[in-house]
Amino acid sequence: MVEEIRRKALKAKEASRQLARVSPRQKNEALKGMAEALIHQEAAILQANRQDQETAKGTGHSAAFLDRLALNPRRIRAMAQALKEIGALPDPVGEVSEMSIRPNGLMVGRMRVPLGVVGIIYESRPSVTADAAGLCLRAGNAVILRGGKEALATNIAIVDILTKEAIRADLPEGSITLIETPDRAAILELLQLDQLIDLLIPRGGPELIRFVVENSRIPVIRHEKGLCHTYVDEDADRTMAEEIVLNAKVERPGVCNAMESLLVHERIASDFLPGVARRLEEAKVELRGCLRSRALYPSMKEASDKDWDTEYLDLILSVRVVQDLEEALDHIALHGSGLAEAIVTQNYFTAWKFLREVDASSVFVNASTRFADGGEFGMGAEIGISTQKLHARGPMGFRELTCTKFIIMGEGQVRRSLS
Amino acid sequence: MVEEIRRKALKAKEASRQLARVSPRQKNEALKGMAEALIHQEAAILQANRQDQETAKGTGHSAAFLDRLALNPRRIRAMAQALKEIGALPDPVGEVSEMSIRPNGLMVGRMRVPLGVVGIIYESRPSVTADAAGLCLRAGNAVILRGGKEALATNIAIVDILTKEAIRADLPEGSITLIETPDRAAILELLQLDQLIDLLIPRGGPELIRFVVENSRIPVIRHEKGLCHTYVDEDADRTMAEEIVLNAKVERPGVCNAMESLLVHERIASDFLPGVARRLEEAKVELRGCLRSRALYPSMKEASDKDWDTEYLDLILSVRVVQDLEEALDHIALHGSGLAEAIVTQNYFTAWKFLREVDASSVFVNASTRFADGGEFGMGAEIGISTQKLHARGPMGFRELTCTKFIIMGEGQVRRSLS
Repeated sequence: MVEEIRRKALKAKEASRQLARVSPRQKNEALKGMAEALIHQEAAILQANRQDQETAKGTGHSAAFLDRLALNPRRIRAMAQALKEIGALPDPVGEVSEMSIRPNGLMVGRMRVPLGVVGIIYESRPSVTADAAGLCLRAGNAVILRGGKEALATNIAIVDILTKEAIRADLPEGSITLIETPDRAAILELLQLDQLIDLLIPRGGPELIRFVVENSRIPVIRHEKGLCHTYVDEDADRTMAEEIVLNAKVERPGVCNAMESLLVHERIASDFLPGVARRLEEAKVELRGCLRSRALYPSMKEASDKDWDTEYLDLILSVRVVQDLEEALDHIALHGSGLAEAIVTQNYFTAWKFLREVDASSVFVNASTRFADGGEFGMGAEIGISTQKLHARGPMGFRELTCTKFIIMGEGQVRRSLS
Repeated sequence: MVEEIRRKALKAKEASRQLARVSPRQKNEALKGMAEALIHQEAAILQANRQDQETAKGTGHSAAFLDRLALNPRRIRAMAQALKEIGALPDPVGEVSEMSIRPNGLMVGRMRVPLGVVGIIYESRPSVTADAAGLCLRAGNAVILRGGKEALATNIAIVDILTKEAIRADLPEGSITLIETPDRAAILELLQLDQLIDLLIPRGGPELIRFVVENSRIPVIRHEKGLCHTYVDEDADRTMAEEIVLNAKVERPGVCNAMESLLVHERIASDFLPGVARRLEEAKVELRGCLRSRALYPSMKEASDKDWDTEYLDLILSVRVVQDLEEALDHIALHGSGLAEAIVTQNYFTAWKFLREVDASSVFVNASTRFADGGEFGMGAEIGISTQKLHARGPMGFRELTCTKFIIMGEGQVRRSLS
């Protein structure tokens, strides 16, 4: 097995050298072909998916898990649509920026180039397979996919279709690779191949991410938890604040950019909190408040220290009354996960202070944290939301799957040092 | 010791929050004050340095090692000058780019912000202490320095001066931290503090870098070896090629951007090689050639397979005749270290093909690889040359010690998903 994974990665590395020089048009045509083939061969994908679902049902997975695993014609059309949209956006590869002439006449600039080989390690959602392959190819990278073992038959069917279209569009063999070995030892082997793989992106639960980070010698971009706050300032428009809070908590509570903690300025708390609390309760949200919040809305449960650090991913909200902006900023610095944070205020100074000082990948003024998303930011599909600071921070599109190199054009310059 | 390092890192983290909002002027004044203080208190630094040199002499270090360790008034002036130059360049923090309005009216852009806390782990050169502190502060980061134990007295003297000036300029305590514990366990402890340190940059030999990469849970930017090629194309201007080759090999053979391998197109080899080989030999360069090179210049030694993968950092050069550009590109892809690669050619198509396809942090046409340097690229001092692809690639100035976050300005927008 070790040998086979190594051999596949070597082939991906070779393919990546050729992919780097493929024209935008050729990449787009491959993506379009893939999109159409997914729809035409829907039946094969659905059949494989039914097989995966049958196996999974027998092994006691949760309903949410089974839902993530399941495909249907609508979901396959969405996969195809994403591939088409990725193809329609401008190609980042070859873009030259910051070119300038140095005093000695050298022209120095930066050229955007693919990373090389990208490894995506993910869990049960088979739509990641097509998205990740499309985003990597669009950026000129070869991709190695390692999906969850429960989706193996579906992933084999999808990759088979994508690979055939890639070859039809004259992309090199090895552009898309699926690691079919089901056990975790296969991931461990991938993690050692730092000479062949340039970047790893784990997508999944905290356990998977920790496993990858702790065992890898390859750079990893991680998307960890989202513990997002909304701070309602004393100068907030109360109606706007109510709508934003409701949306951030209720619209889709199970995702990383949903709000988990509400902070309210003490001067607006007695006016604002009871009304919004009632609406949240009507929407089936369980509220867990600090002492001052509970004094204003006694039916709240008492929040424990642990609540301020808990990503519920559920219809639960912790609520705290703060003295001022500084206390809100301190609370967010201490408890925030660095994903998305929002303020509601009409005050210019307060808004800019919040924007500048909050250390998170997306900082919002007067909007719901639910917008922290590659599609909403205009990137097309996203490969994930990075909560780390290096290379890519926040929603990552295919542009974040490239890097730059310096290009230097001379006329025979040589260097004379002083030393 | 473990507790003390943790406590220092925690203090650095606290300082970093304040540093992120310090004005450019205040940072510049701190840097100017530091530069002047280094010169005024030269005597204290030199005395500490003499102490370090005495200790090191007794323990059998090489002359090159002792030279790197030694300071003199000229080197201290150079340290001060670097701090002034860092202060004079534009501040990257707060820069907003790519701001655009989404269809729903949200304004989405990216704001450049400091990384937070940067750890620099280096070996014997005490000038790194001032450079690294200056670059980190300029980018709004707190810095934790861990220099070589042989330079400890010197580093204590330098950091003492820098810290006093930082506090005089009203920067927070904890902005500059020196880890004084001499043993490697102190580094190991630093490497575990992924909640407090945002980036590690090891500067030193391969053993140090490997140690940091293999033991760290914090993102690392590494500067590994430089195995640079110069490819002399069939369409090269021969005089220009000769000057570039001589410069890249001879001017300073011990540094990472010096050339280690010369590739020559077979159609120009008989005209070009003997002349340049003679000049290289006159400059005391030992030549190790392939069979075809030796046929043209018989006094060359025979290159072994190992030579193509060896970074000599010395007056030694491997020489190979290649069939064409493709063979040169293959050789570089196989043996290059990804630092800097150069071509000499007058042919437009060949030049652009080389620029686009070579996978290295700096790709040169008609210039010496010796220019791969932050100062030469206009960045001021450099914190190192990254040979990795993520976040920063090539020479790194203080701008590379920042990252961006998304800022989003709304008017009450909430999200309505389709699903």
